[in-house]
Amino acid sequence: MTIDINTDMGESFGRYKLGNDEEVMKYISSANIACGFHASDPSVMNHTVKLAKKYGVAVGAHTGLRDLQGFGRREMKITPEELKNDTVYQLGALDAFLKINNMKMQHVKPHGVLYRMVEQDEGYAEAYVEAVSEYNPELYILTESGTVLWEKGVKAGIRMAAEALVDLSYDAKGNWVIEREKKARTPQEVADRAVSVVRDGKIPTIEGKLIGVKADTICCHGDAPNAADVVKRIREEFDKQGITVANLSKILA
Amino acid sequence: MTIDINTDMGESFGRYKLGNDEEVMKYISSANIACGFHASDPSVMNHTVKLAKKYGVAVGAHTGLRDLQGFGRREMKITPEELKNDTVYQLGALDAFLKINNMKMQHVKPHGVLYRMVEQDEGYAEAYVEAVSEYNPELYILTESGTVLWEKGVKAGIRMAAEALVDLSYDAKGNWVIEREKKARTPQEVADRAVSVVRDGKIPTIEGKLIGVKADTICCHGDAPNAADVVKRIREEFDKQGITVANLSKILA
Amino acid sequence: MTIDINTDMGESFGRYKLGNDEEVMKYISSANIACGFHASDPSVMNHTVKLAKKYGVAVGAHTGLRDLQGFGRREMKITPEELKNDTVYQLGALDAFLKINNMKMQHVKPHGVLYRMVEQDEGYAEAYVEAVSEYNPELYILTESGTVLWEKGVKAGIRMAAEALVDLSYDAKGNWVIEREKKARTPQEVADRAVSVVRDGKIPTIEGKLIGVKADTICCHGDAPNAADVVKRIREEFDKQGITVANLSKILA
Amino acid sequence: MTIDINTDMGESFGRYKLGNDEEVMKYISSANIACGFHASDPSVMNHTVKLAKKYGVAVGAHTGLRDLQGFGRREMKITPEELKNDTVYQLGALDAFLKINNMKMQHVKPHGVLYRMVEQDEGYAEAYVEAVSEYNPELYILTESGTVLWEKGVKAGIRMAAEALVDLSYDAKGNWVIEREKKARTPQEVADRAVSVVRDGKIPTIEGKLIGVKADTICCHGDAPNAADVVKRIREEFDKQGITVANLSKILA
Repeated sequence: MTIDINTDMGESFGRYKLGNDEEVMKYISSANIACGFHASDPSVMNHTVKLAKKYGVAVGAHTGLRDLQGFGRREMKITPEELKNDTVYQLGALDAFLKINNMKMQHVKPHGVLYRMVEQDEGYAEAYVEAVSEYNPELYILTESGTVLWEKGVKAGIRMAAEALVDLSYDAKGNWVIEREKKARTPQEVADRAVSVVRDGKIPTIEGKLIGVKADTICCHGDAPNAADVVKRIREEFDKQGITVANLSKILA
Repeated sequence: MTIDINTDMGESFGRYKLGNDEEVMKYISSANIACGFHASDPSVMNHTVKLAKKYGVAVGAHTGLRDLQGFGRREMKITPEELKNDTVYQLGALDAFLKINNMKMQHVKPHGVLYRMVEQDEGYAEAYVEAVSEYNPELYILTESGTVLWEKGVKAGIRMAAEALVDLSYDAKGNWVIEREKKARTPQEVADRAVSVVRDGKIPTIEGKLIGVKADTICCHGDAPNAADVVKRIREEFDKQGITVANLSKILA
Repeated sequence: MTIDINTDMGESFGRYKLGNDEEVMKYISSANIACGFHASDPSVMNHTVKLAKKYGVAVGAHTGLRDLQGFGRREMKITPEELKNDTVYQLGALDAFLKINNMKMQHVKPHGVLYRMVEQDEGYAEAYVEAVSEYNPELYILTESGTVLWEKGVKAGIRMAAEALVDLSYDAKGNWVIEREKKARTPQEVADRAVSVVRDGKIPTIEGKLIGVKADTICCHGDAPNAADVVKRIREEFDKQGITVANLSKILA
Repeated sequence: MTIDINTDMGESFGRYKLGNDEEVMKYISSANIACGFHASDPSVMNHTVKLAKKYGVAVGAHTGLRDLQGFGRREMKITPEELKNDTVYQLGALDAFLKINNMKMQHVKPHGVLYRMVEQDEGYAEAYVEAVSEYNPELYILTESGTVLWEKGVKAGIRMAAEALVDLSYDAKGNWVIEREKKARTPQEVADRAVSVVRDGKIPTIEGKLIGVKADTICCHGDAPNAADVVKRIREEFDKQGITVANLSKILA
């Protein structure tokens, strides 16, 4: 049993600090780094890439809607063409920091409400896949399996990485709920959910049932107040269960 | 006699249109494309790169201060580290659009007041050269010869391209004046200055004298109301004088 | 027969110019001035207020979504609470320029896609009316009669001013279509529609039928390329038809 | 002995939280509320005004440069005219939230590097005083006595309130140093400095000497990690020394 752990990183902005990136970086295998649209700025990006390098963490672009005030959590009806161009722009911007730090980009993942927009809307899903295909078809796209984005990606020959959001609530239909401000769950609760996902392929819903979920990677959000404790606890539980953590190129190669 | 003509391109932003890019593109050899900090947005960038490709024009990154309202013409005391990161970010963002359009970046040029900041300040000049060296040492840097930036670039082994700003006013010391809104000069006046620069290596000052100027490339601003007429007239005068227009890789190879 | 003519004004931003405000100002009775969210900046606002004063034009706040790149034409799912606060902020900002120019605010009007959002959504309509009620209950709200916003406003005791959008297309249901970039209609066509609205209370649909429309004010968009010609032609047709133009305080007092 | 205590408040922005406003509000008499340029957003502003009302704290506008990323701490060479308009805009925006909460604005204070720009530059000082005079000549301006701004304000008949920055370092000339990120001093150290200022009219320099300082109000920064402890400790020391805390209208009436 091997799994990737991905976390949102580099969400600070200027004077504003968010998350405890260096502490979290020690326990994860993939970092989704914000690209200046929903969070971050160029200096934060460079700093975060260096942190990922220091801890041997693979880097992906966490692309979002251009809305710092709303942290990319307010739906915006941009055109698919705008989504494509906004995505290409963000991919290139992050790649530049990887380049000057002698690293390669591993994956791309849509942030916040954009995650849902590309999961559900055909036009957005196509635009997103096009951006990735044309910019760098070697990138993995992180999303939930079975979504519109998943299908468009598979069809275009993109390597899709299925993810489970172990620190978010799922409803009976397998959908998760966007929260403006993340609530802190106990590290043990999240760790138990993570183990359930990796070992059994199941995650509990808010109604208390277990539903099936496919996961090559599990996501823990970096802006939860106890994010570092959560990922640390997950690693401890994984050790007990004999679950290995490795990044996507090792899991999906 | 061979010279490059470079013009600022892609300065529109959302609903706001600036310049007559397609018309100007027909007469130039190098386009300095704005990267979303002082002007432009991702959709404008993609559109402008496609235009450059259509007309066989070489593309460079026109990097600026992050100040849309001030159009990058208001000095901001950012740190050299911020300048470096802001520059790397913009280089990567534009490069992404070149990549999806199968083009290569030729050069980089600082925009507006940043042009003067990197020409005069040691810390900014070093940061700018570092950004280019680390990101892509094959890029030409466009600036005036003899400046602090020029010397730092030469020292770092960057290929520097000397430029003359034929549509701006020079004072007796060889400095040009930043104007918030470009005044329209007659195309013939600018064309005569351009010929003087290329043929004689001289440009007239506001006091009416001629001073020496080194030029591998001449710059005409794209946001002048008559920008297209100016570059057209320059090409006509160049034809009469037997001056050939070609991009930097042909001139400085 | 008396009617108000309102036009969007002050939509320039920094280096970017939009519309021919001074020319249009000569022919209208009410100006909807952008407040820095979807367009404009403080210097443009002060300049536009002075223009309105010079030509005796009543001023209203044209409040919008905070999205300069999208010009307030891309729906954003902000919360009603955010809409209320964003509206109060914009009202105060514009009022400050009226205050230093010894003028009073006459009205408020939602811009772009926000116009439709508050017309159709109960939560947004309530938030908008609350912002106006709490900030200044003497303001008129400009909107189409019969909408959710209209009803919420009437209920709250706000003076509602019914408007017809004479330069936009209506469908059979009486809804108009948002265009990212306004097309230029011939001034005569718009003038004929304006006369039809004021004299007959009817406006033609895209299917060619006439539908009833209530109007205390007609709107002509200021960012059409021929905006000045349009309002001039409307005034000429109004003169022929004996239609007087006056601002809302004279019409709805 | 009576003194005002003013603190920067409302510096959060969207998802980003800064300071412990509610805790600090309990110990101060005047709050400088950010207006959306260097920090804050409309929802944060409304929330902060309500907090000030709850604790009986007088409110002023903390106006800054439009640079969220730099938190208003990077000098920008805007024109005096732009400074005037930016100031009027911010005053009006904050006043709107005071109006809907039935409060009056007490004062205005420049933020960050703008504080120094208006203290030292004639053109900026004049523009700032003009903005206040024209918008509301009843407002106090908070600044250090003896500066260019102080003199321009006095001359224009504005009520100036002298402030000492008890948590910043002063050099021998009586100038304080801008720090990008505030260091935490011990509450006792700041409290001792505050008592020295109020009781003796003196503040220690970094060289260890005491220099004279005039103070109607003392400033404690709200973004220091221990801001609440600092103001609490100051109040305790003031109680011991028989120093009363009251807002400006009581001190300077």
